[in-house]
Amino acid sequence: MLAYGELTAFERMAADAAMAPTVADKAGLADAATAEYRHFTLLRERLQELGADPEEAMAPFRRPLDDFHVHTAPSDWLEGMIKAYVGDGIATDFYLEIANYVDPSTRRLVQEVCQDLGHAAFVVDRVRAVIAEDPRVAGRLALWGRRLVGEALSQAQRVAAERDALSALLVGGVDRPGADLAEIGRMLARLTENHTRRMAALGLAA
Amino acid sequence: MLAYGELTAFERMAADAAMAPTVADKAGLADAATAEYRHFTLLRERLQELGADPEEAMAPFRRPLDDFHVHTAPSDWLEGMIKAYVGDGIATDFYLEIANYVDPSTRRLVQEVCQDLGHAAFVVDRVRAVIAEDPRVAGRLALWGRRLVGEALSQAQRVAAERDALSALLVGGVDRPGADLAEIGRMLARLTENHTRRMAALGLAA
Repeated sequence: MLAYGELTAFERMAADAAMAPTVADKAGLADAATAEYRHFTLLRERLQELGADPEEAMAPFRRPLDDFHVHTAPSDWLEGMIKAYVGDGIATDFYLEIANYVDPSTRRLVQEVCQDLGHAAFVVDRVRAVIAEDPRVAGRLALWGRRLVGEALSQAQRVAAERDALSALLVGGVDRPGADLAEIGRMLARLTENHTRRMAALGLAA
Repeated sequence: MLAYGELTAFERMAADAAMAPTVADKAGLADAATAEYRHFTLLRERLQELGADPEEAMAPFRRPLDDFHVHTAPSDWLEGMIKAYVGDGIATDFYLEIANYVDPSTRRLVQEVCQDLGHAAFVVDRVRAVIAEDPRVAGRLALWGRRLVGEALSQAQRVAAERDALSALLVGGVDRPGADLAEIGRMLARLTENHTRRMAALGLAA
């Protein structure tokens, strides 16, 4: 899921760069996009190491992740930037939470891949500058942030419902312990808190 | 022009990857796209070394290159693949011809950036396989190839007409010699021959 997520994130960020007003802004998104693609190649390698066919392993996640992007196509460069920061942020947090329940070597890879490479700071600076110039855009962008999270949760729920392996990973099963309901509640609280913190960093209400 | 060309090629190829049927095909185009982005960063560095502001230096070429992509938006993944090979091929040949008239250090950079990194072979293999399965697509794809070249020539002519520096580079000026008309004729013949060779490699009439 993370591998295919990185690949689609690459495609969408690169496409969104086409809407950027300046070459420097294009390059900022392009730089973030190429980092996602490099992550994809690392995860694909790991799948092969584990004896999986990458094509087959990613197949069940294509539809929900493609649908997420279709439902959250940015209408301008600003929405694209916020999607790259807020949408990626909540997805990354989710993968890091899940990584607590996988083998140590896969966990280290997920942590490496989910590390922020400084692209968040680029987005925060640019978005704050735009809002400072025209404070009226803040309302629209706050709504956009809420829509991104709503759509991410709806697709995550769909994946969890359809993929027993993912729910079992999270809540455990007969042969191994997972998180109990209280822990899942705390996880959701952490995801929400981090999201609120990111929106605040942009100067937006969550 | 080449720097901005690489940046937009990155954006468009990455966006076209979204139309690819398999993860392997997406990765093939994504790989080619990230190579273009790396070339962009090398050219941007060179512009800075030369004391130019990359934003300003690329500005006159944004409109023609953006228009080229708007007028040649692929309707499916196959058209995207052919654009990545045939469109990039003729552009690359043009830049390599122009490189004969710039300083040796810039020439080496242009040659490095215009080197094929094996992505052409990937496209040729995939397109030939698709045509072998359904020979009826060949007619549509041959038309598409002609449209790509027509649009590329029309934008190149526009740039040459609007940018005295580029025409002067090619045909020379009072202080330095350039190509004479016969040499420009030979250059156009070489561009056309190479294009026909690429179309033939795909199994298509030029």
